[in-house]
Amino acid sequence: MDDDTVTELPPEECWELLRKQEFGRLAFHLVGEVHIVPINYVVDARRLLFRTAEGSKLLGITMNEDVAFEIDEINEDSARSVVLRGRACQLEGHERDRAEQLPLRPWAPGAKYNVVSIEPTEVTGRVVKLDRPWRHMIPEH
Amino acid sequence: MDDDTVTELPPEECWELLRKQEFGRLAFHLVGEVHIVPINYVVDARRLLFRTAEGSKLLGITMNEDVAFEIDEINEDSARSVVLRGRACQLEGHERDRAEQLPLRPWAPGAKYNVVSIEPTEVTGRVVKLDRPWRHMIPEH
Repeated sequence: MDDDTVTELPPEECWELLRKQEFGRLAFHLVGEVHIVPINYVVDARRLLFRTAEGSKLLGITMNEDVAFEIDEINEDSARSVVLRGRACQLEGHERDRAEQLPLRPWAPGAKYNVVSIEPTEVTGRVVKLDRPWRHMIPEH
Repeated sequence: MDDDTVTELPPEECWELLRKQEFGRLAFHLVGEVHIVPINYVVDARRLLFRTAEGSKLLGITMNEDVAFEIDEINEDSARSVVLRGRACQLEGHERDRAEQLPLRPWAPGAKYNVVSIEPTEVTGRVVKLDRPWRHMIPEH
């Protein structure tokens, strides 16, 4: 981006936004396809944790650990987004037990016993000043 | 999902939500990696259109047309999300010219001359009744 309406967020601000939120979107590989699902998550030091039932998410990351994750925050004037790329790994043993102490419950009740961590290889964030020119073309209601 | 807190959205409600919003997240392949970016889009009949500059999005979908796209809407009690999987294709000629008539401008000024369509192969939506048990563990401020 070469425009002053787009500003890169420094890493600390990316992590601040990640800690503030609890809902994002996970993109993962599944047998050669790209899939995307909303998830709730928690930040644990410098990684993300989420829970999942047995299913396509778990199958996908078991077959290919490469994932991307996104959160955003939009208001009338600007959009902030943070994108994290990294490796997903199912936690086992005491690592999984420790995750029980974190405020990480599935929003929807159900048997989501698996805890997955995303170890980031890259975290980037941007603020975009919004300009929605078509809004001026639409008569007020 | 086998739980009554999760309800599938019928296709018409998925499209209604897609038409109502203008901001979502695109997941795409890039040289064996999965990437995710926020985009603004418009619904054109039964496909999505978005604009992009030359860059990793355009490179990625040119090399692999398989994409996934997500929008969501969250409030205190429920989360609705729509996920669309499909094929991305850069529009040319009169198709691209016709897109000029749609309310599809980039939010951020800049040279985003390329118009890409996403032709869906699958559209699914879910409503999840939210239960955030850890909220009860956190003292009120």
